Amino acid sequence: MGKNRLEAFSDGVIAIIITIMVLDLKVPHPTEPVPHPDKLADLKDLLPVFLSYVLSFIYLGIYWNNHHHMFHATKHVTGGILWANLHLLFWLSLFPFTTGWMGENHLAPTPTAVYGFVLLMAAIAYYILQRAIIASQGHNSLLAAAIGTDWKGKLSPALYLAAIPLAFESVWISNGLFILVALMWLVPDRRIERVLVNRREE
Amino acid sequence: MGKNRLEAFSDGVIAIIITIMVLDLKVPHPTEPVPHPDKLADLKDLLPVFLSYVLSFIYLGIYWNNHHHMFHATKHVTGGILWANLHLLFWLSLFPFTTGWMGENHLAPTPTAVYGFVLLMAAIAYYILQRAIIASQGHNSLLAAAIGTDWKGKLSPALYLAAIPLAFESVWISNGLFILVALMWLVPDRRIERVLVNRREE
Amino acid sequence: MGKNRLEAFSDGVIAIIITIMVLDLKVPHPTEPVPHPDKLADLKDLLPVFLSYVLSFIYLGIYWNNHHHMFHATKHVTGGILWANLHLLFWLSLFPFTTGWMGENHLAPTPTAVYGFVLLMAAIAYYILQRAIIASQGHNSLLAAAIGTDWKGKLSPALYLAAIPLAFESVWISNGLFILVALMWLVPDRRIERVLVNRREE
Amino acid sequence: MGKNRLEAFSDGVIAIIITIMVLDLKVPHPTEPVPHPDKLADLKDLLPVFLSYVLSFIYLGIYWNNHHHMFHATKHVTGGILWANLHLLFWLSLFPFTTGWMGENHLAPTPTAVYGFVLLMAAIAYYILQRAIIASQGHNSLLAAAIGTDWKGKLSPALYLAAIPLAFESVWISNGLFILVALMWLVPDRRIERVLVNRREE
Repeated sequence: MGKNRLEAFSDGVIAIIITIMVLDLKVPHPTEPVPHPDKLADLKDLLPVFLSYVLSFIYLGIYWNNHHHMFHATKHVTGGILWANLHLLFWLSLFPFTTGWMGENHLAPTPTAVYGFVLLMAAIAYYILQRAIIASQGHNSLLAAAIGTDWKGKLSPALYLAAIPLAFESVWISNGLFILVALMWLVPDRRIERVLVNRREE
Repeated sequence: MGKNRLEAFSDGVIAIIITIMVLDLKVPHPTEPVPHPDKLADLKDLLPVFLSYVLSFIYLGIYWNNHHHMFHATKHVTGGILWANLHLLFWLSLFPFTTGWMGENHLAPTPTAVYGFVLLMAAIAYYILQRAIIASQGHNSLLAAAIGTDWKGKLSPALYLAAIPLAFESVWISNGLFILVALMWLVPDRRIERVLVNRREE
Repeated sequence: MGKNRLEAFSDGVIAIIITIMVLDLKVPHPTEPVPHPDKLADLKDLLPVFLSYVLSFIYLGIYWNNHHHMFHATKHVTGGILWANLHLLFWLSLFPFTTGWMGENHLAPTPTAVYGFVLLMAAIAYYILQRAIIASQGHNSLLAAAIGTDWKGKLSPALYLAAIPLAFESVWISNGLFILVALMWLVPDRRIERVLVNRREE
Repeated sequence: MGKNRLEAFSDGVIAIIITIMVLDLKVPHPTEPVPHPDKLADLKDLLPVFLSYVLSFIYLGIYWNNHHHMFHATKHVTGGILWANLHLLFWLSLFPFTTGWMGENHLAPTPTAVYGFVLLMAAIAYYILQRAIIASQGHNSLLAAAIGTDWKGKLSPALYLAAIPLAFESVWISNGLFILVALMWLVPDRRIERVLVNRREE
């Protein structure tokens, strides 16, 4: 199993996930007859759906970006890596469902908590995949050097874990934490690039 | 991050967007019992849905085509280009929603205005992406030379901007403007090809 | 614009079309309370939906197969070929809609006629694409030689055209014609392969 | 028709199938007004849907994995292999439908039996594809040697066949058999890898 194959399949799955989320942006259908059935007011109902769509789009963009950086530093693919990768794709594939549920319920506590749970599981799956790659490439490998202390990878699950019970106190705190983690990762992960450049210079 | 990777991912997302739009072409379900439930009259209701599908299909074809011409003249991909590209894909991903909404409401004012707004944002996102590429490749780059004055790229957002308030006057004017812009771009953009050929000859 | 790019995009779109058709296979929801809600009887209602799914799946498989044979004999891609290809993809993208409509209405006349109409338009779009390729490659090109008299390509639209009005007489005749054309094409098109082999031997 | 093309198309179709299954995870909509409309109780109803989603995700992961191992040992593609492959993709494309139906009916007998039937047909299609490849490559081919007695490939359809009537006795036995077969295949198929390594050493 070549590395390219796995990357192409993952790209395909992530491209589909990021796109089918939009199917949950349902065209507003007023249930009672209204004088102006196409008022902008219809769009106001869509706002929470739209905002959770934006958030999930950014998360999937970050995962796609980091997934590539990680595999850029990977040389060969084992059966373990393959299944760790499918495990990550599984949790990512639940994003459209949790996004739609949270948006449609106007960020109610339970959907928000479930959204956080899926984010947490995806982060854990990403961590397992990273471990599986390092285990197969050796602890002196490029990826191990590039990741270093991996404070982002360790802080993110902790923040998701905090956001789950906090959703029942205030969904704003939970969603604030989700946005915070996204912003934290939006800064492109230069660690791997830096190590690659260093190695080339040696 | 190689250029090919980004092109393949963008291709995948655009291919999915262009195809899932058809899911909004709903099979007609007569709500009251009718003597001939499968009359051609059912199709007449579908006409605005179908026409807005055709328009969006052409727009996405144009974006796909120009996207490739642009990346053909791009050498390396930075983090900024990557996120500018995801930003463009985000607005394109809203096409199925706005297309379905406009079609289903028989081209009513608000959906038409929202359709124009998403076209405008996609055009701005395309412009930002173009700027990000030129910024990273230098102002003497192939792409900068190829684009030149970019009158189409500057006129299109102006026409979309005009079409948004005009939708509340007459949806025919707005939709006429959308069709006009599409026709303007359907003429293949030979600028980049010409510059590529010129450079090769030098 | 490279040939590979266009092939990859077409592959992506056809892969999505062939797969989202299954979304029209709706899980049966009995509308009135029934003693055995999961009886096999539920599946009987699905039979026409399933059969039209099978037919469209085979048609799309044939188009995918022939599309590749055609581009295998194509050397460069022009703007005209690109838009002729998008035109073909447009009509193919309507297959899920017409398939779902025909299946859900138990092969009623109008949906059957519309199904035939979309088949006809796809066949015409394929013919235009073939002409555009031959026009750009020269009439002595590999593809022109390979296609020869192209009796299948000429007979198929004639049979679709006959099937459209016949649907209002008997949907069985129309569907019989659709199946006949599919069987006619299922025999793999060895013409292009043969010419390729001949040229290699010269 | 190159091997890469067929692999890329199959990858695309499997990526889409594995992802659109999630569209059947419907956001819970309480039908009667409830005091806490977003309680975790809503999620309990989703449990059978979720579990059948997990099972099908694993099955599709196994098919994707084995499909690649098989084509890794394949040298050229004939018309017969192409159609045998489309036949396999056809049965795999029904997974989202049977998964959704089984999950939504809380693993009722008929949907479980139909789920088993589609698994059986996919296994038979895989077997036919394997035979078509061996027939075209010769019985001394890499693949023939790698597969050997193929006890898993022979045992699996037998277990699916048993699970179909057993669903009407106890859906737990049937689902237990489906899980057993999945576990049996989750162990990566080292046979082809082993033969490839042996040949390289000779």
